[in-house]
Amino acid sequence: MKNSCFKILKRDKNTKARIGVIQTKKGKIETPFFMPVATKASVKHISSMDLNEMDAKAVISNTLILHLRPGEKLIKEMGGVGKFMNWKGINATDSGGFQMYSPSLYLHSTEEGVWFKNPYEARKVFITPEKDMQIQLDLNSEIAMCLDTMPLMEHSKEQIQLAVERTTSWAKRCKQEHDKLQSKISQNKRQLLWGITQGGIHSKLREKSARELKELDFDGYSIGGLALGETEEQEMKMVKIHKKIIGENKPCYLMGAGNPPEMLEAISLGVDMFDSRFPTKCARHGTIFTSEGRIRLMRNKYLKDKKPLDKNCRCFVCNNYSKTYIRYQLKQQEAVGYRLASFHNLYYLQNLIKEAKRAIKQGKFKEFKNKVQKEYKKGDRDKK
Amino acid sequence: MKNSCFKILKRDKNTKARIGVIQTKKGKIETPFFMPVATKASVKHISSMDLNEMDAKAVISNTLILHLRPGEKLIKEMGGVGKFMNWKGINATDSGGFQMYSPSLYLHSTEEGVWFKNPYEARKVFITPEKDMQIQLDLNSEIAMCLDTMPLMEHSKEQIQLAVERTTSWAKRCKQEHDKLQSKISQNKRQLLWGITQGGIHSKLREKSARELKELDFDGYSIGGLALGETEEQEMKMVKIHKKIIGENKPCYLMGAGNPPEMLEAISLGVDMFDSRFPTKCARHGTIFTSEGRIRLMRNKYLKDKKPLDKNCRCFVCNNYSKTYIRYQLKQQEAVGYRLASFHNLYYLQNLIKEAKRAIKQGKFKEFKNKVQKEYKKGDRDKK
Repeated sequence: MKNSCFKILKRDKNTKARIGVIQTKKGKIETPFFMPVATKASVKHISSMDLNEMDAKAVISNTLILHLRPGEKLIKEMGGVGKFMNWKGINATDSGGFQMYSPSLYLHSTEEGVWFKNPYEARKVFITPEKDMQIQLDLNSEIAMCLDTMPLMEHSKEQIQLAVERTTSWAKRCKQEHDKLQSKISQNKRQLLWGITQGGIHSKLREKSARELKELDFDGYSIGGLALGETEEQEMKMVKIHKKIIGENKPCYLMGAGNPPEMLEAISLGVDMFDSRFPTKCARHGTIFTSEGRIRLMRNKYLKDKKPLDKNCRCFVCNNYSKTYIRYQLKQQEAVGYRLASFHNLYYLQNLIKEAKRAIKQGKFKEFKNKVQKEYKKGDRDKK
Repeated sequence: MKNSCFKILKRDKNTKARIGVIQTKKGKIETPFFMPVATKASVKHISSMDLNEMDAKAVISNTLILHLRPGEKLIKEMGGVGKFMNWKGINATDSGGFQMYSPSLYLHSTEEGVWFKNPYEARKVFITPEKDMQIQLDLNSEIAMCLDTMPLMEHSKEQIQLAVERTTSWAKRCKQEHDKLQSKISQNKRQLLWGITQGGIHSKLREKSARELKELDFDGYSIGGLALGETEEQEMKMVKIHKKIIGENKPCYLMGAGNPPEMLEAISLGVDMFDSRFPTKCARHGTIFTSEGRIRLMRNKYLKDKKPLDKNCRCFVCNNYSKTYIRYQLKQQEAVGYRLASFHNLYYLQNLIKEAKRAIKQGKFKEFKNKVQKEYKKGDRDKK
């Protein structure tokens, strides 16, 4: 039996928050961590040098998108997605299951696999669980994801049940193929594989998905199909169900979550990994994360504001630029505005995670979480 | 009589190339230098931190565009355009005369001034030479430009003659207003003002323009209305005429020129300052400046090329990223691709100027120029 890649170093006494470490073929990474989204092997407006500067430890790219262009064979020749983008941190890859949510890419799926449109050429692309594993191995990421079947929020319970069943069936095929492909690779060079639970916000279905995937003994587990518009209460309920079944000894990844108060809530339930476009998308629209909550930079009140985005932030953006300047650049749709705001929001999240870890170590996580969540409620005053 | 702001430190023996120094209210700047274009107080995809990193010494912004938004009064409150963009180097401002070239902004002009469209509001904007001077003073740039009348390349000789005459008449008004506005400012706090010669590629008109402006004794002189599609021979002929009339003791700025071999040719004729969108525009289209000439990164030959954009370049882009990676990001229209390619091209020009200065100091400028120009002819092989 293979060794566990995950070790818990410190547990919070008042919540399920923990500090852990995942051993990957590229080295160790401490949990919890947040992964900026590098779909096409780059984060929007943010280079891998910038990621180093903000002390990010991992990014997540997209298997389907990279398969379409430039193709996994090219990336393999370049030494894998990490070398391709010159990134010294950990690379995770999502399977492409999420793109079943994208009307511009998704056609339909069968028990065998998924048909996608190729937006670059007049041909369709058929992705099976087996093919997905081969692509992710070629991409040479440290952490791969199973191909899951992604139900839409508005789907009926019956449809979501079918998605859960297919996700389990594909997870088995992913596991089998992944084991086969890696059978000749030594333990310390193995790519890790995460199973993804589905089930929408239906307790029984989420439970069923978790139970079925647990049997397959993945290296880690992702919670899929959330952070898509459900309430935070519904979301956290699903996290709890997932965690209860999967247990505490596997890394837990809440896919798509990147809102500061939401992340802290999830950490308190024992979530270890996050990714989201939310911080960079927010940034481009002038929604800025700060130690005093979220601000809406495009409001008139910031027209003449010489102060940095966040007076308590030490990122290069806050050290060098005023709200007025960044606001103007965003208003003019200038790339520099997108870049500065994106860098700050991502830096903020990296720093938030650091502070969360410090609080866990000091046994003060709950106070820390409550404090930040309170600020975020206040910050939303800008909404009005 | 006011002191000259310009001192020549070293002259090349074989050409008219020289190293000089311009004293501005923000300190000295050595010539020759190249100014990245920061129209809206930012260079596309390049922050002022990036400009420091590439050792740029000056940028040029646009008076008309900044007047429209965010307005010179706001920038004045922020401490001027330099503080607004957090730029420690020299800020030059172009007057907006060039925007008479822009059909989306230009309406018409009279002897009194120019009517522009305001693209942000349903009202017209009237810019007079006097108003332009007031705006530039509010922007607080170190080097201001006269409001000139910009003829189009396709204009008749008669139209260009009228443009020359109006440019002279406006230059007088600019000078008068600028002197008046600055009459209470001590010599070392003065904003410098450049006159701009026009005349298209008509020798007699360019000569007339230079003669008339020379009488007004500006701090420096710009050559306007070139680098717009004329041949390099025609362009350099105009540079020679301008220089012959204005003389060697004033800084000479060839507006809009940013092509490496063209810049070196101009330096050999005694040009001291450049600005251009060309390097960043080229970069976004995959045309890369290198020590071996210009390459077209989008060619298939670079699809699998692990080498940097320029093997002899020491910029962070060449130290960290492959041609393949940048090509893919550009192809995907990802911001990171634009940023990396733009940084490299601008760095290349800054470095080219440094090497040109070194060659001037060593009395080897002509050899240096010939070598680079030869490489640039070879580099264009990619065109085929």
